[in-house]
Amino acid sequence: MTDRLPVPLDKAYRLMNHGPTVLVSARHGASINVMAAAWSMPLDFDPPKVAVVLDKSTYTRKLVEASGEFALMVPARELAQLTLQVGSTTGSEVDKFAAFGAGYWTGTQTGAPLLDDCIAWLECRLIPEPHIQQTYDLFLGEVVAAWADPAVFRDGHWQTQAGGKKSIHYVAGGHFFEIGDAFEASANLPGSGNNAG
Amino acid sequence: MTDRLPVPLDKAYRLMNHGPTVLVSARHGASINVMAAAWSMPLDFDPPKVAVVLDKSTYTRKLVEASGEFALMVPARELAQLTLQVGSTTGSEVDKFAAFGAGYWTGTQTGAPLLDDCIAWLECRLIPEPHIQQTYDLFLGEVVAAWADPAVFRDGHWQTQAGGKKSIHYVAGGHFFEIGDAFEASANLPGSGNNAG
Repeated sequence: MTDRLPVPLDKAYRLMNHGPTVLVSARHGASINVMAAAWSMPLDFDPPKVAVVLDKSTYTRKLVEASGEFALMVPARELAQLTLQVGSTTGSEVDKFAAFGAGYWTGTQTGAPLLDDCIAWLECRLIPEPHIQQTYDLFLGEVVAAWADPAVFRDGHWQTQAGGKKSIHYVAGGHFFEIGDAFEASANLPGSGNNAG
Repeated sequence: MTDRLPVPLDKAYRLMNHGPTVLVSARHGASINVMAAAWSMPLDFDPPKVAVVLDKSTYTRKLVEASGEFALMVPARELAQLTLQVGSTTGSEVDKFAAFGAGYWTGTQTGAPLLDDCIAWLECRLIPEPHIQQTYDLFLGEVVAAWADPAVFRDGHWQTQAGGKKSIHYVAGGHFFEIGDAFEASANLPGSGNNAG
């Protein structure tokens, strides 16, 4: 049993806004799979949308295309090895959940398996855009439910006490960063400064 | 004068792979501008491509659409205030470079202004995809030149010595994380494990 609480949809972008490496899962019929993706980002606030790159070789992509659903999950450093394991094997050959002893639960809006012990989960409905899927391996989704471990993200904010779980940010070749210190900055401008670009 | 060395194009994705918040700049004719973007990601390795979300309200977007070019830049914590400043003002009203005392240089492949004191710079040529630009504010580009501060990224790798400059990862409302400790993990699998999904 993984600790989780629902995250209001208008705060869901905050689970990915700082650029963590994510896991991607999907289910079609009796088939489930999970992979790793360093290339994902929020795409809109409300309704929240996301973008993620899914290579043509991946079994997860087949399940996403067949089911029209997927989940993005934010693993913490404790899951770094699992992230590499599910990122370096293919679901067309290996039952990754059994092979790596990974448990999962099911959310409320999709059938995608939600891995235990992540710090955040976003259930997504595929927004079909065949041209960019085919040309760039780029998949868009609307976030239809979101969850977080309340020890790590609660009341719309990351909890950053010492010793808490930290998101991981993949570079290459088994090298990661973990996320570091939280800090605040101010634009320190006269007036409201609500324009943006 | 900002320290920088060229980064080979096949390593350019590593400058953004860990999900930093970036600055986006563009030039059209005599007009230049820069904004902040938390929503960007690599899209391909070689030739390297990127994706970034540019809201319709932004002046930078107009310059990108008019010129077919843009730059993504990775600011360090020292530029967190500037990141908020250029992210909370609009170039249609303010000459941000003058207003915030930001210097810049020009690269070799685009006219986009490259801000001084960033830790990495990616010059990009827009890949026109009008439907997703209009529908999702989503812009794709091919990276045609890349640069990094050699104290921070050198020989294809992030340099992670104590006291070095760190990328910043925006959450919301002036709250950031800086990137934290580097670590290595291993999938620890038998065989080569070069599949991925």
